[in-house]
Amino acid sequence: MTATPAITIRRTRRDDVPAIVAMLADDHLGSARERLDDPLPASYYDAFARVDGDPLFRLVVAEQGGRVIGSLQLCMLPGLSSQGASRGLIEDVRVASDCRSRGIGEQLVQWAVAEARSHGCKLVELLTHHTRVDAQRFYERLGFARSHVGMTIRF
Amino acid sequence: MTATPAITIRRTRRDDVPAIVAMLADDHLGSARERLDDPLPASYYDAFARVDGDPLFRLVVAEQGGRVIGSLQLCMLPGLSSQGASRGLIEDVRVASDCRSRGIGEQLVQWAVAEARSHGCKLVELLTHHTRVDAQRFYERLGFARSHVGMTIRF
Repeated sequence: MTATPAITIRRTRRDDVPAIVAMLADDHLGSARERLDDPLPASYYDAFARVDGDPLFRLVVAEQGGRVIGSLQLCMLPGLSSQGASRGLIEDVRVASDCRSRGIGEQLVQWAVAEARSHGCKLVELLTHHTRVDAQRFYERLGFARSHVGMTIRF
Repeated sequence: MTATPAITIRRTRRDDVPAIVAMLADDHLGSARERLDDPLPASYYDAFARVDGDPLFRLVVAEQGGRVIGSLQLCMLPGLSSQGASRGLIEDVRVASDCRSRGIGEQLVQWAVAEARSHGCKLVELLTHHTRVDAQRFYERLGFARSHVGMTIRF
């Protein structure tokens, strides 16, 4: 019997960017929006630098046995409402397609909720596409409520 | 016949904070979350300073005849998805209760969408409480789609 290597959640490094973009592209909604050229378009690295250099954001990966198998971005946004409490926004939760149903997404999301809470956020919010019914059940299981309608406009 | 004074959308000043908080509190969902003490709790001014000092945010008010009658916060968030394009998040859209149905919210939201677009955002998103059916129709009229489920966890 081989032990499963433990999962580490850690800050994203610049050389993790291609693995994250590959996960973003491996998705029926994301595939048309990403560009998996080698090398990757510089716009991905520019965005990484903007996120990585700003204390409002946490861009993290789940790593197992040296491989990046999941990622998530947490934003902790100041604002006046709720007596000036910041709110957390979770974006771009992804798990490699061959690593799903092993609790990796759950560990990532619970890490983000705890991180937001420990930084004074009174609310964490996210949007899931209305077709992602499994994702909605997943978030409900983690304590999220289907309280809002998420509305988008895309250019 | 008296002409209606024009509406100006402008950056929020520190002395606008009480008017914004009053609008946030004048709402069946917001009333329990805000504190309208005089003077206001310092946490509101601390949050204002964090938002006002960060180029990712636009906290604006609609002013008419010297009175603040609406407000909105736009966040322009960097991230890896969509080839590293930033995305806009609109939060805390409010119009004074005696000034509704005059197109003020529409001017605020259209200002925010144009601002996000001009700064390279490819997407603008927002959450509206599932009970705010009028708000959902309003955003659909402005070109937003009911594409997502907005999920929240509150501490």
